[in-house]
Amino acid sequence: MTARNAFYAQSGGVTAVINATACAVIETSRKHPQKIGKLFAGRNGILGALAEELIDTSLESAEDIARLRHTPGGAFGSCRYKLKGIDEHRAQYERLIEVFRAHDIGYFFYNGGNDSMDTAWKVSQLSEKMGYPLVCVGIPKTVDNDLPHTDACPGFGSVAKYVATSMREAGFDVASMAATSTKIFVMEVMGRHAGWITAACGLASESAGEPPHLLLFPEIPFDEAAFLARVEDCVTRHGYCTIAVSEGLHGADGRFLSDMGTTDAFGHAQLGGVGQVIAQRIKDKLGYKYHWALPDYLQRSARHLASATDVEQAYALGAAAVELALAGRNAVMPGIVRLADAPYRWEIGVAELKNVANVERKMPRDFISDDGFHITDKCRAYLAPLIAGEAPPPCRNGLPDYVRLKNKAVPKRLGEFAI
Amino acid sequence: MTARNAFYAQSGGVTAVINATACAVIETSRKHPQKIGKLFAGRNGILGALAEELIDTSLESAEDIARLRHTPGGAFGSCRYKLKGIDEHRAQYERLIEVFRAHDIGYFFYNGGNDSMDTAWKVSQLSEKMGYPLVCVGIPKTVDNDLPHTDACPGFGSVAKYVATSMREAGFDVASMAATSTKIFVMEVMGRHAGWITAACGLASESAGEPPHLLLFPEIPFDEAAFLARVEDCVTRHGYCTIAVSEGLHGADGRFLSDMGTTDAFGHAQLGGVGQVIAQRIKDKLGYKYHWALPDYLQRSARHLASATDVEQAYALGAAAVELALAGRNAVMPGIVRLADAPYRWEIGVAELKNVANVERKMPRDFISDDGFHITDKCRAYLAPLIAGEAPPPCRNGLPDYVRLKNKAVPKRLGEFAI
Repeated sequence: MTARNAFYAQSGGVTAVINATACAVIETSRKHPQKIGKLFAGRNGILGALAEELIDTSLESAEDIARLRHTPGGAFGSCRYKLKGIDEHRAQYERLIEVFRAHDIGYFFYNGGNDSMDTAWKVSQLSEKMGYPLVCVGIPKTVDNDLPHTDACPGFGSVAKYVATSMREAGFDVASMAATSTKIFVMEVMGRHAGWITAACGLASESAGEPPHLLLFPEIPFDEAAFLARVEDCVTRHGYCTIAVSEGLHGADGRFLSDMGTTDAFGHAQLGGVGQVIAQRIKDKLGYKYHWALPDYLQRSARHLASATDVEQAYALGAAAVELALAGRNAVMPGIVRLADAPYRWEIGVAELKNVANVERKMPRDFISDDGFHITDKCRAYLAPLIAGEAPPPCRNGLPDYVRLKNKAVPKRLGEFAI
Repeated sequence: MTARNAFYAQSGGVTAVINATACAVIETSRKHPQKIGKLFAGRNGILGALAEELIDTSLESAEDIARLRHTPGGAFGSCRYKLKGIDEHRAQYERLIEVFRAHDIGYFFYNGGNDSMDTAWKVSQLSEKMGYPLVCVGIPKTVDNDLPHTDACPGFGSVAKYVATSMREAGFDVASMAATSTKIFVMEVMGRHAGWITAACGLASESAGEPPHLLLFPEIPFDEAAFLARVEDCVTRHGYCTIAVSEGLHGADGRFLSDMGTTDAFGHAQLGGVGQVIAQRIKDKLGYKYHWALPDYLQRSARHLASATDVEQAYALGAAAVELALAGRNAVMPGIVRLADAPYRWEIGVAELKNVANVERKMPRDFISDDGFHITDKCRAYLAPLIAGEAPPPCRNGLPDYVRLKNKAVPKRLGEFAI
């Protein structure tokens, strides 16, 4: 068997641990020089393949590659770009194969969410039809935790640890201030369609009365009257109320709460943060002073607070992807299989890409309490191991010491392609 | 010398390390049972003294008190409540002395910012006039870092470390996404009048082109044209632009940028976050997609990311306050005196409360670059040691393990007092 080159691309929103997966793909590939020649990474994800901008990872030192394990963001650039359907835009898929052929790429590793697994599957189909030998392996990644066929998605555990920690810490702050000042604290978290991250906030509360007091899930239509009654009750009991809300919260009419029809001084429509909308609603109706927080990218890039479990799984899946490819397994995705909750045990499983593509995993209803405002013990049992363990990055001058790679591209061999 | 009791109160916005000071005050007091009887803490700060709600810290175990060193928020409750002038509301001051007398309190430790130092000074004056023997010692605390007569304020170093870390991490995220998605990232930080926290964000950038690219200080009136030109230039050079903005940013007319005259669907005035205002302005004028973050309380409660230097100084100042009181030093505040930048060396100094009260320390102009958009090397030399060192709290179940005290009050001996 002659060595062939490999191509790795990061896709969609990045995470605190996607580079740990990249680290594993590169380190594992380097262990098999007789089978894998060079590993190219797409500059800005799949766009790098279309534009033939292939980063030569062989130019990076072993030391720098090892540092990827603790560096957030996407080391080679990611992209929000979904390839269209094959029938609609066959030329794009053919271009991919053409680039792969020009650089003797025999392995395609695509690290992303639902859309990416769909793309990887389509590429595997087309390469077969075109008679081009290519092994396509998807590697799961998404802070939203909404991929099927894996117990959890790398990236989620670290966001979960971040939001739960932040909620606990802010809770101690608000509790101190509530007598004369802030009585309401609202934190808006990611998750437009699935409430996994909102649920993770709930882990901060270990017994009744501890923050967060209320969770607002995208799975549960917002019932303002019921919500305000719970806020009032909470302030009466505890003196304050802390709330985590999903960016995707919507009303019974399906409209996002953040779409409030607000306008700024120039008359432009404003999509306010739902966190502020909720907090302001409480202020208007109950009169309590509020603070609200929007961690935004901070939550998904907080490598300083990554879950050790998450880092380990992100790495293991990258390594497994390479091993699967070398074993000739085409059109598959390694995933996490849970063997036990406590003590937590897991192993790597394998799913067919065609079963993963475009399927969204929502929160089971029995993970949310009957009243819709918190998580159940079943949910806690699922979430708890995912945030376990600390994996702090090395620090220099008081700050995390992250790596920036050289990211040199190999010379192009083909002409331009209009993306 | 007969042992007398002591009173400790936390004041104003809490920090990640104010409890480390409380820990030091309690632990140091316990080392001197021949001089200090019980240490009472005010429930919700000075309000606890006025309402005679005195928490008996002697009921807390040594182990729990030790855990205060790594617990954020204010363990006994804080308050935003400024005593009025003595002439205006002498009854309040007399009530304080009355409560102190009823519980044989001979030492008053007030842990707060400018206003609190002013109050502590007034109380020391009045007790003298009233012939009540009382030693008043202020202990500095404020994330805003705006107290004079101390090289830095406990609480600031940890916020500084948090915002610099967050900016660096978000910078890696945005850099990955900029090709096809977010090109602008804005983080709004605390500091209504002084730009110390905004300046700290600048530490994340160690060489040209690294995030954050632009800083917007409250000390520099916002010049929209100059700012937008810099943003455009940054996107052209680097593909993206990251910005930290102080909540207190204002225009040349003195108006806060956050006061945009926006209204919500109900016609209510909305005080938008200045971070969003800035980001939206860029979108409107330059057309770039943005994300913005508002860490709010997260930045000042992030004990998980505290600066070891900050924790150490917070503790040292609490211990020094007790030692000063026992030495009979009245109406003083211990502060940090810097002996050298690198390697950083410091010692405890002593300031007169009357010189501290109501004086605000702004950023020196030569800490801000000539163009007004970043920090100078002189500023870096000042800030760098303050974020040095990690001091992670112990974790349990993947989350920081913080302490909640019993906080039992001693029986009241006086009648009600209308606050």
